[in-house]
Amino acid sequence: MECKGALVEAKGDLGEAEVVLRKRGIASASKKSSRTTKQGVIASYIHPGAQLGVLVEVNCESDFVARTDDFQTLVHDLAMQIAAADPQFIRKEDVDAAALEKEREIQRARALGEGKPEKMVDKIVEGRLNKFYEEVCLLEQPFIKENTTTVADLIKTKIAKLGENIAVSRFVRFKVGDTAPEE
Amino acid sequence: MECKGALVEAKGDLGEAEVVLRKRGIASASKKSSRTTKQGVIASYIHPGAQLGVLVEVNCESDFVARTDDFQTLVHDLAMQIAAADPQFIRKEDVDAAALEKEREIQRARALGEGKPEKMVDKIVEGRLNKFYEEVCLLEQPFIKENTTTVADLIKTKIAKLGENIAVSRFVRFKVGDTAPEE
Repeated sequence: MECKGALVEAKGDLGEAEVVLRKRGIASASKKSSRTTKQGVIASYIHPGAQLGVLVEVNCESDFVARTDDFQTLVHDLAMQIAAADPQFIRKEDVDAAALEKEREIQRARALGEGKPEKMVDKIVEGRLNKFYEEVCLLEQPFIKENTTTVADLIKTKIAKLGENIAVSRFVRFKVGDTAPEE
Repeated sequence: MECKGALVEAKGDLGEAEVVLRKRGIASASKKSSRTTKQGVIASYIHPGAQLGVLVEVNCESDFVARTDDFQTLVHDLAMQIAAADPQFIRKEDVDAAALEKEREIQRARALGEGKPEKMVDKIVEGRLNKFYEEVCLLEQPFIKENTTTVADLIKTKIAKLGENIAVSRFVRFKVGDTAPEE
């Protein structure tokens, strides 16, 4: 429900009717989210200068949809998103427990260090963890080309338009020198 | 030494002088193999149809060499090699002990099943493990565009020509549906 609210807010400049349609589209998109996606494409994005590159697999249900311009554009946008915003995971559930616990500790220490009242700290920490998810999870990130919407909502809009479930199954992002041993 | 022998054989059509020069080049290339490679490029290869893609990082010592056509061609060839020949590792030392032990067991059982004499089995197994390395290690594979040379020798020839150490530091190969759960 929070997602929809955010979308409506973000789309304040759209007509009422379009908002309703988009809400319906996203609701029907959510219903499709359990359907199997075995087709799709592999796409890459190499940043000019070739010091940074991304490879991503995005799946849908049929070869037909995989070939559409809409799907191809989405895949290209996702590859650019990964290059620009450097997500570490696809979705919230993928964040490993150790990384989450570490972030929780950091934010707790920070809140206490700022002199926040003890009884408020848990709430502040949870709020900042949402911010953390927005930074490290592809689907939670603001879309680089339109930062009032999230990547998850961008995908849901395409699901609504194309009538098939769509899922990002994996990605990698290589930067020259990331693996070079320290001297 | 074995490498050089193979190269000379493979290059039977070259003049004696060129063979000597290539041998010297490869010898001097080997000396460079410990030098640090922090520059380089990230390249991708998407096979027509976009059902298969590769991302690879290839490093050299200077930005200058990274920009040369020779280096760029090498990187492109390596990406195509990975797409076509599906290596699992970069070099022999990267093959994990479990995978190696499993292959050794398979080949031992196969040799015994073929009725080879017990005292010959170890030797046969080692011979077949070399074949296994040629299949799964990028550097041991025959180069797809010229299968009388290995990928390692292709890289050594470029090291000799460009005068800098060159190393493949990582790659991934995605095929659509590889990650799809079984139904």
